[in-house]
Amino acid sequence: MPETTLVNGERLWDTVIAMAAVGRTPSGGVRRLALSDEDRDARNLLTRWLRDAGCAVRVDDLGNIYGRVAGEDPEAAPVVCGSHLDTVPTGGRFDGALGVLAALETVRALADARVQTRRPLEVVCWTNEEGARFAPAMLASGVVCGQLTLEQAYAARDLEGRTFEEELRRIGYRGSPEHRMRSAAAYVELHVEQGPILERAGAQIGIVEGVEGIAWGWVEVTGQAAHAGPTPLADRHDALVAASRIVLGLRALAAELPEVRTTAGRCEVTPNTVNVVPGGVRLSTDLRARSGEVLDAAARRLAALCETVAQRDGVHIRASEFWRSPPTPFDPLVVDAVAETARGLGYSTQRLWAGAGHDAKYVADRHPAGMIFVPSAGGLSHNEAEWTPKDDCVRGAAVLLGTALRLAGIA
Amino acid sequence: MPETTLVNGERLWDTVIAMAAVGRTPSGGVRRLALSDEDRDARNLLTRWLRDAGCAVRVDDLGNIYGRVAGEDPEAAPVVCGSHLDTVPTGGRFDGALGVLAALETVRALADARVQTRRPLEVVCWTNEEGARFAPAMLASGVVCGQLTLEQAYAARDLEGRTFEEELRRIGYRGSPEHRMRSAAAYVELHVEQGPILERAGAQIGIVEGVEGIAWGWVEVTGQAAHAGPTPLADRHDALVAASRIVLGLRALAAELPEVRTTAGRCEVTPNTVNVVPGGVRLSTDLRARSGEVLDAAARRLAALCETVAQRDGVHIRASEFWRSPPTPFDPLVVDAVAETARGLGYSTQRLWAGAGHDAKYVADRHPAGMIFVPSAGGLSHNEAEWTPKDDCVRGAAVLLGTALRLAGIA
Repeated sequence: MPETTLVNGERLWDTVIAMAAVGRTPSGGVRRLALSDEDRDARNLLTRWLRDAGCAVRVDDLGNIYGRVAGEDPEAAPVVCGSHLDTVPTGGRFDGALGVLAALETVRALADARVQTRRPLEVVCWTNEEGARFAPAMLASGVVCGQLTLEQAYAARDLEGRTFEEELRRIGYRGSPEHRMRSAAAYVELHVEQGPILERAGAQIGIVEGVEGIAWGWVEVTGQAAHAGPTPLADRHDALVAASRIVLGLRALAAELPEVRTTAGRCEVTPNTVNVVPGGVRLSTDLRARSGEVLDAAARRLAALCETVAQRDGVHIRASEFWRSPPTPFDPLVVDAVAETARGLGYSTQRLWAGAGHDAKYVADRHPAGMIFVPSAGGLSHNEAEWTPKDDCVRGAAVLLGTALRLAGIA
Repeated sequence: MPETTLVNGERLWDTVIAMAAVGRTPSGGVRRLALSDEDRDARNLLTRWLRDAGCAVRVDDLGNIYGRVAGEDPEAAPVVCGSHLDTVPTGGRFDGALGVLAALETVRALADARVQTRRPLEVVCWTNEEGARFAPAMLASGVVCGQLTLEQAYAARDLEGRTFEEELRRIGYRGSPEHRMRSAAAYVELHVEQGPILERAGAQIGIVEGVEGIAWGWVEVTGQAAHAGPTPLADRHDALVAASRIVLGLRALAAELPEVRTTAGRCEVTPNTVNVVPGGVRLSTDLRARSGEVLDAAARRLAALCETVAQRDGVHIRASEFWRSPPTPFDPLVVDAVAETARGLGYSTQRLWAGAGHDAKYVADRHPAGMIFVPSAGGLSHNEAEWTPKDDCVRGAAVLLGTALRLAGIA
């Protein structure tokens, strides 16, 4: 007989739908870029909801919003649950918002049931997770967790040249550095999967074991630009032909090393003219894996591939890594709590790793952290058609509440 | 015992070097964009040289300059020799200029030797052959030969928005429509090869049998943009992977059909972001061959390739042709005259087709036409380092003069 949950599914769903109205696009998606007017309206709404639910609300110098409910032991480190409210330019209704609003539902449900936990509970809404307006992504959690500097965050500019700091002030969300998250017994983030694994496996809940490591690099091919008319094929040093071999080789590499995922996402051709044999190509490479050793092995194979292709096509190829985010396994304390809670509720589960970055990744560098995934229909995300059925949202919130209770302790 | 030539090699070379000073770049190349101040200066210099050589100079409404020497039979259609003086932004000293100045040398040498031909001789300098400033290329010969309209030419705009007509007026070279080339017994154009064939074959003179046909098209691949993180490889519909197969398939196609040359010169990726699986790619295709049938066969194979790749990668691919220039065999009258002249002079020759467009291509649509090629060192062209040795220039001019004499007839 599965346990029941205190989550009010109707209220959760209504809250998600109400938040999705802030920045709603004509096609039913959401455009709520970080520190925009829409983001301000969403923050104002959240802040009101948090206060109504009995939270003490504070804002730190990055604009992160925290809503705190006292625990029986006021000195104990809190259990923090949350995610983000910003979206990509044509985003969906669930990415980020679900995690914040399910954390709100946790507080609301416990208040309704007059349950006080031993540890304090905090709802957090991180600023600029997407990085769609201010690069890099996860800017505010990165600063709070010591991976980025405040100066870096404040100086980040959007395409119109406005800085993070200006916009933070403008929307009235530049709080105090004393308000930052300092300690946490655990951090739990509910998020939509943004991939097809749970849906395909028929699993209701994803137990996230960690965030994969990412290595970003450039492959720069230098051939020889030549007139497409008079230049015989045998005389060409066609940079796009060589780059095409790299793209396909990179794909084959992931088939040989199944623990790695590879993507060539950017491709810039010089001179990029119909009747000129390409003289240069710059190709981006994105490698993801659960261990640094696998990333290294993939990078070595990529380097060997570049050498082979360079020789074959008579071109020069330089492969270099320009950014790496190491793999981050989540804390067994949190992962096990998620697993036990889902089992107790009788939900079908699947263990998996997050392929994308999340605020939980930076938090995990400092505090015990973990994530809960719910299915994304068709694996679709960063898309106005992003969809997670109501029942999945409610199950995710139920696991979040149960996990928070386990970790915070009931008096 | 080979024939000797009337060409004054020193004078020809000095003239080529003097013209290369107009628009000379710091690296020793030439920047003489059509209808620029540099083009005007070059035209003024040519006009003076033509008058000094005894030519009657006229300018037509496209800015084409003609220098005419009367023939013994003033009613006979002239033999016209020439090329162009405009260059690409970082062009060389020989592309175009050599053909105009060798035609000038023909007139000068015959005047020195007091030789009058039966037919009139004309030197022509075509406006905007390169198309580097005003698209399309060969704009003025295209209008004169009825392949393009005057309105099209006059309305063509450069990147700063200035029209062909404005700039033609500004530099003072908008002449009269009555001055256009109306009839020609033959048109002969000397040009640098812009490819490596003659140099490799050790041939001094290229007897050009025609201009290859060109088919330009787009291959548009529509896959599905997806997050590079959470999207398993098996679920991807990666447009760049598919496009890479097309690039390599297009190259293989040319190996299977050796009469065709293929190039993918442009490649535009959407959204072109490091961490997004490419959702779309637009790839240009350039097919060249000596017959329309071969072009058609290549286009059919490209279409079949697109179908195979579309199926394999689960993407949609649309291949379409947006421009075709049919193959143009030159007139045997001119080709044979070139061959006989070169043989008479004892030069080693190689028959070949032009892979790039030339004004001779449009002229050939109306009048008997042909071309003479001289070697390009390393096959290099459209490059400041473009180089054709003096002896090759002189041999080319000697063949031009001899061919003109053959076709114009000596009194």
